[in-house]
Amino acid sequence: MAQMMKAAIFAGPNRIVLDEKPVPDVGPLDALIRITTTTICGTDVHILKGEYPVERGLTIGHEPVGIIEKLGSAVKGYQEGQRVIAGAITPSGHSAACLCGCMSQDGAGTKHGFKAMGGWRFGNTIDGAQAEYLLVPDAMVNLAPIPDGLTDEQVLMCPDIMSTGFSGAESGAIKIGDTVAVFAQGPIGLCATAGARLMGATAIIGVETVPARMEISRRMGADHIVDFSKGDPVDEIMRLTDGRGVDVAIEALGRQETFEAALRVLRPGGTLSSLGVYSSDLTIPLGPFLAGLGDHKLVTSLCPGGKERMRRLMDVIASGRLDTSSLVTHRFKLDDIEAAYDLFANQRDGVLKVAITP
Amino acid sequence: MAQMMKAAIFAGPNRIVLDEKPVPDVGPLDALIRITTTTICGTDVHILKGEYPVERGLTIGHEPVGIIEKLGSAVKGYQEGQRVIAGAITPSGHSAACLCGCMSQDGAGTKHGFKAMGGWRFGNTIDGAQAEYLLVPDAMVNLAPIPDGLTDEQVLMCPDIMSTGFSGAESGAIKIGDTVAVFAQGPIGLCATAGARLMGATAIIGVETVPARMEISRRMGADHIVDFSKGDPVDEIMRLTDGRGVDVAIEALGRQETFEAALRVLRPGGTLSSLGVYSSDLTIPLGPFLAGLGDHKLVTSLCPGGKERMRRLMDVIASGRLDTSSLVTHRFKLDDIEAAYDLFANQRDGVLKVAITP
Amino acid sequence: MAQMMKAAIFAGPNRIVLDEKPVPDVGPLDALIRITTTTICGTDVHILKGEYPVERGLTIGHEPVGIIEKLGSAVKGYQEGQRVIAGAITPSGHSAACLCGCMSQDGAGTKHGFKAMGGWRFGNTIDGAQAEYLLVPDAMVNLAPIPDGLTDEQVLMCPDIMSTGFSGAESGAIKIGDTVAVFAQGPIGLCATAGARLMGATAIIGVETVPARMEISRRMGADHIVDFSKGDPVDEIMRLTDGRGVDVAIEALGRQETFEAALRVLRPGGTLSSLGVYSSDLTIPLGPFLAGLGDHKLVTSLCPGGKERMRRLMDVIASGRLDTSSLVTHRFKLDDIEAAYDLFANQRDGVLKVAITP
Amino acid sequence: MAQMMKAAIFAGPNRIVLDEKPVPDVGPLDALIRITTTTICGTDVHILKGEYPVERGLTIGHEPVGIIEKLGSAVKGYQEGQRVIAGAITPSGHSAACLCGCMSQDGAGTKHGFKAMGGWRFGNTIDGAQAEYLLVPDAMVNLAPIPDGLTDEQVLMCPDIMSTGFSGAESGAIKIGDTVAVFAQGPIGLCATAGARLMGATAIIGVETVPARMEISRRMGADHIVDFSKGDPVDEIMRLTDGRGVDVAIEALGRQETFEAALRVLRPGGTLSSLGVYSSDLTIPLGPFLAGLGDHKLVTSLCPGGKERMRRLMDVIASGRLDTSSLVTHRFKLDDIEAAYDLFANQRDGVLKVAITP
Repeated sequence: MAQMMKAAIFAGPNRIVLDEKPVPDVGPLDALIRITTTTICGTDVHILKGEYPVERGLTIGHEPVGIIEKLGSAVKGYQEGQRVIAGAITPSGHSAACLCGCMSQDGAGTKHGFKAMGGWRFGNTIDGAQAEYLLVPDAMVNLAPIPDGLTDEQVLMCPDIMSTGFSGAESGAIKIGDTVAVFAQGPIGLCATAGARLMGATAIIGVETVPARMEISRRMGADHIVDFSKGDPVDEIMRLTDGRGVDVAIEALGRQETFEAALRVLRPGGTLSSLGVYSSDLTIPLGPFLAGLGDHKLVTSLCPGGKERMRRLMDVIASGRLDTSSLVTHRFKLDDIEAAYDLFANQRDGVLKVAITP
Repeated sequence: MAQMMKAAIFAGPNRIVLDEKPVPDVGPLDALIRITTTTICGTDVHILKGEYPVERGLTIGHEPVGIIEKLGSAVKGYQEGQRVIAGAITPSGHSAACLCGCMSQDGAGTKHGFKAMGGWRFGNTIDGAQAEYLLVPDAMVNLAPIPDGLTDEQVLMCPDIMSTGFSGAESGAIKIGDTVAVFAQGPIGLCATAGARLMGATAIIGVETVPARMEISRRMGADHIVDFSKGDPVDEIMRLTDGRGVDVAIEALGRQETFEAALRVLRPGGTLSSLGVYSSDLTIPLGPFLAGLGDHKLVTSLCPGGKERMRRLMDVIASGRLDTSSLVTHRFKLDDIEAAYDLFANQRDGVLKVAITP
Repeated sequence: MAQMMKAAIFAGPNRIVLDEKPVPDVGPLDALIRITTTTICGTDVHILKGEYPVERGLTIGHEPVGIIEKLGSAVKGYQEGQRVIAGAITPSGHSAACLCGCMSQDGAGTKHGFKAMGGWRFGNTIDGAQAEYLLVPDAMVNLAPIPDGLTDEQVLMCPDIMSTGFSGAESGAIKIGDTVAVFAQGPIGLCATAGARLMGATAIIGVETVPARMEISRRMGADHIVDFSKGDPVDEIMRLTDGRGVDVAIEALGRQETFEAALRVLRPGGTLSSLGVYSSDLTIPLGPFLAGLGDHKLVTSLCPGGKERMRRLMDVIASGRLDTSSLVTHRFKLDDIEAAYDLFANQRDGVLKVAITP
Repeated sequence: MAQMMKAAIFAGPNRIVLDEKPVPDVGPLDALIRITTTTICGTDVHILKGEYPVERGLTIGHEPVGIIEKLGSAVKGYQEGQRVIAGAITPSGHSAACLCGCMSQDGAGTKHGFKAMGGWRFGNTIDGAQAEYLLVPDAMVNLAPIPDGLTDEQVLMCPDIMSTGFSGAESGAIKIGDTVAVFAQGPIGLCATAGARLMGATAIIGVETVPARMEISRRMGADHIVDFSKGDPVDEIMRLTDGRGVDVAIEALGRQETFEAALRVLRPGGTLSSLGVYSSDLTIPLGPFLAGLGDHKLVTSLCPGGKERMRRLMDVIASGRLDTSSLVTHRFKLDDIEAAYDLFANQRDGVLKVAITP
C-alpha cells in the first residue's frame, strides 16, 4: 500500500487545505524530493482566490528546497541524500522551445514544441512543493545541488523570486552606467533591484508605498526611493533623473498604472522590462509610446528555470554578492499552512515571504 | 540677393502648396544638395491632413536623391557634383543617443542627448526635400555617394521606405529558418517582407487586402499571402503554420486590429516588431499577451539613418539582391506636386510610391 | 539471438572496413533508425588516417538519414516508420552546456556539464551512421522528422555540412550589407557561402583553387571568386573591396595560410569566423592582429545539433531557399563503402560528397 | 604672438622631455582645455622606448582632466570654465566606423571610414595631454562634464584605464554567475576585475605576482588571487574552479604566456577577452584551442571613447560603485614629468599610476 504524505491542495476557490495523498511513484526520469523548506508565492494566492484556474486536488507550490529521496532508474549524476533545489519552472530539455533557449515556454509533448507557460508545471499542471514530498520531472535538467554551507532559507528565493526578479534586469539588458527604475518593491521587485545592481546600473530607483519595503529596497541596491502614494512617481523620477528618464524601467506589479508610469519615465530608445502578472487588458498610451516611433523595447519574462540557472543563483548567494534572507519574514510548519496562506494572502504583519517546513 | 527656388510647403491643414523660397545658406557642416528625385511618404500625408503638426511654411519631404551643389567649409571627403542620397533621419553623430547607437532619437542640443524622434529633421523641424535644393545638416554623417550605375529611382526607396522596412526585420532579429508574418504590404510592409527574406526567414506570410500589392508582395519575398479582408487572418496564419504561430510578426500599418492580430499569431517567446505609426492608444489584449508571462518582445523602430546605413541599403540594390523599382508607380514634376499629393493621399490608381523630379 | 547488421568500422589506421555487428538494443530514451542514406565527412578521413583517435571497432559516420525502426519506452512524440534525420552532434538536452545554449560542448555525465566537443557522439564515442542501423541517444532531443516531399539526398547535408557551414555565417553575425570572404569552397565552405547569402551579405567572395568548386560557389551565392593558387588572395580581396577589407572572414579549411589570410583581409573591428579543423598550432601575426588593439573577434564553431536546428535547416531546403543537391557528386552502396572512402579520401574525380545507401 | 605653454614631447627614443610650444589655435569644432590633471600610461612608455613610433616633437599623453578654456565657433552645449574630461580615444562621430558603433577604429577622412586604431589621436597622431593645454577635436563628441563633487583624481582613470579595463569585462559579455579569471593586475587588469564584479561575476580570480597589487585586486573585486610566480597558474585556477575552468578569461598583460594560460583555463564555449598590447606574434596552441572546435570566442578591445562612455564611467565613480583613487600612488608637477616617467617606466616604488598637475 502506498505511503501517504501531507500536501496543501487546491480544494476550490478560497480553499487551499492540508490533505493526505500518496507519496508519488518515481518514473525513470524523475526524482522524489523530501521537502525541507518551501514557500508561498503571489501566484499561489491567485490560485487560492480562483483567479488562476488549476484542477481541484492539485498540490500547490513551486519553490522547493529538499533532499533527494529516490532517483529514477535513468537518472545519473546525483545521489540520494543530496540537498537540492529545483526551479519553479521545470523545462524538459527536449522541446523546440528548450532547444531555442526559451525554456519557460516549453512545449514538450506538443506538436511544435512551444506551449504558453509550458515550463511551469509544479502546482500548475502537476503536483507542487507544498507537501512532504515532491516528484521532480526531468530530474537531470532540473535538480541543482545546494552548495555546502548554505541554509535552506538562504536558497529559498532561488527557485522563483530571485530567478524572476533577476530576469527583469537581464531582459532589460542593463549595462554599466544605466539608470533603472523598478516599479513595486515586493519580493520580485526587490530581486529585480538587486539584479539591476548586480549588472552595473549606477542609479536605481525603487518605487514603493510600504515603508518597510522601502528600507529593504535600499539594502538590496536602490539608490533612490520614490513613494508611489505621494504624488506622481513620474514627476519624481523625471526630477531625480534631471529630466532624462531611465534607460530601463522594470514593472513588477502587474497593473495598468505601474505599466504606464514605467513607459512614461522611459527615455527614447529605452527598454520596459515587465515582470508583472496582469489581470486585465493593458493600454499603451499613444503619447509616451511616441506613436510607435520611439525605438522602445517592451519585454516580458517568465521565471527562468533549469539546474544551471539555479546553480548561478545559488552562486550569487554563496559568493556573498546578495543576501535574500531578509525577505523571509515569517515561518510556519506545513501543518499550519492554512494560517500561512491567511497571513500572506492578506499581506498582514509586514509579510514579504514565509518559510514553510514540513 | 538670394537665389530663389521652388519648394512644397505646408500652408495649413489640407494645403501643401508649391511656393518660392530662398536657396538656403550653407553653414560650415552643411551641404547643399540639388534635388534630382524625391518622393512623398505616408507621413507627409499625415502632415497634409494636419494630423502631425509642423510649422506653416516648412518645406515637406524627407527622401532626397540629388547632386552636391555646395559643401560647407568644414566638410571633407566629398566633392561638389557628386551624386548622393541622405537618409530621412539625419543624426548629428555627437549626441548621447548617437553614441549609444540610437541615432533616430538623436538629442543633439538637448541637455541629456536624447530627444523623441529627434533624428527626424527633414520636413519636420527643418526644411525638407520636396524642393529644388535641400540643405543637409551634419553632412559628413549623412551624405552617402550613390554607387556608379544606379539610377535615381533605384535608390529612391533607401532614405526611408527600405530603411524602415528592413529595420522591422532587423529589430525582429530574424534568424535562418524563422517564420514571419508581415501585416500590411504597403511600401514599408513590402520592404519588411524583403528584409525578412534577406535575413533568412523561410516562411514569410504577407497580409494584405489589395490584389496588386499581393502580387508585388510575392515578388519581394512572401511565400504566402493572407487576405485580411476575407475572414480572420489570425485563423488563416495559424492554419498556414499548422498551429505553431510565427516567430516574428511585423506590424506595418499602425492600427489596433493589425497590432492585435500580430500578437495573436505570435508564438510564445516570439517578437512583435512594430513599424506602424499609430494614431490612438493601443490595447494589449490579456489573453494573447499571456498575462505578461509569454516571454514576448515588442519592439518599435524608427527609420535608421546615417550614411553607413544608406551605403548598405544601396549595396543591397547594387548587388542585385533586391529591386525596389516596382514600388515607383507614378512620376510627377515638382511643378505638379499638388497633383501628386492628391493621387497619393487618396491612394488612387494603385499608387505605391511616386517619383518627383524638379 | 541478436539480429546482425553491416557497419563500416574503424579497424586501425588506413582501415575502415565493412563488418557485421549486432543491431543495437534500444534503451528507454533511444531510438533505432534504419539508415536509408548517409555520407562520409572529412573528419571520417582524419579518423581513417589515424589522425583523430577513436576506438577500434567503432562504427564511423555522423550524418544519418533514415526511418524510425524502434522507439525507446520513454520516447514520446514520434512514430515508428517516420522518416527522420539526426544531427552530427547529438546533445543530451540536460547538461549545463545544453542549458547555456552551448550544445556542441555537451558535458552530460561530467561533473560540471561541459565537455570539449562532448556533443559529438556518432562515430566518435558511440557507434555511428555508416551502417544499416543507428542507435540515436536522447531521441526526443535529436530526431527531426523530414518534411513531406524532400528526398534523402535533399536533406543529407543537414546533419553536418550545412549546419556547420551556416554556423560559420551565424557566428560571424553577418548583417544586411556585409562583405564576406569565405576561405575554401569545399562542402563546408560552400555552405558557409550559402549561409552568408541567406543572412543578407551583399558581397561574398569565395576563395578556392578547384575550378569545379568555383562554379558551384557562384551557384551557392558567391559574387566573386578568388583563385588562391594565382597570386596572393589577400591582394585580390583588398582590390575587390577597394581597399576596405571584409566585415566577416570565414575560414573553412583549417590551415595556417588560410587563417592568416582571413585575418589580413579583415577590416578593423571585423569578425574572423573559423570552421576549419586545425592540425597544428596556429600563429596570429602581430601586424594584422593590430597588436591586439583591432577590436577583432575570432570565433570558432562546432556543428550545431538538435532537432530544432535540423528542422530549420530542412525548412531552408523545403522553402526552396537553397539546393544542396549538387554537392552529392557520387553514389555508393554501403557494401561498397571502402571504395567510397578510397575515392573521397583521395579527392578523386571532382568528388564533393558521396551518398551511401544500405 | 602666440601664447606659449609647457608640454612633454617625444624627442627621440628614451627622451620624453618638457618643452615649450604655442598654445594651439581653436578650430570651429575644437575645444581648448586647460589641463588640471593628467597621467602616464604604459603605452606612453612604449613610445618613450621607441617601441611604438610617433613623430618627434609630438606632445604625449591621452588622459586629460581639465577646464574648458575656449570653445570652437560651432561647438554648442558647453560653457567655458566647465570641468571636463575626454577619452583617450576621440572619435569623430561621423566615420563609417563610428556609425557602426566601432568608434576606436574610427576612419574619419579615409575612403571607407575604418582605420586601424584610428580613434586614438591624443599623443599618437595629434598633440596629447601632458601639457598645460590640450586641443580636443570634435569637441561635441568628446567632452564630458565632470559631475559635481568629484575630484580630478577620482575621474583620472576614466579616459583610459577604467574604460579599457571595463571593456575587457564587457567584451567578455559577463553574465550573472560567471566565473572569470583576469591575467595580470596592473591598472588595466584591476579595472577589468572591477568591471567583472560590476557585471555580476560571482567568482573572480586575479592573477598577479606583486603582493601590493594582489591586495588592491581584492579590494577592487577579486575573490581569489593566484600568484603567477608560484607554480603553474593554470593548475591553480583549475583547482579553484574544481576542474571546470572559467567562463571568461581576460588577458591584461600582452604576453604569450598569459594569453596561453588564459586559453588553457577557458571552458569549452568560453570567451577569451584580450586587452593586452602584444609585441610579437602570438601562438594559439592546438590542444587548448580544441583544434578550432571549442566554440571559443577570442575578442580584442581597444579603449572605448566618446563623451557618453565617459559619462557612464564617471557615474560609476559618483554612485560609489567603485573607487579608483587607490590606483594613484604618486603625484608630480608637470615640471617634474621626466622624473615621473623615470619612476613609472621602471615601475619603482610600487607605482601603479601617477597624477601629473601643471
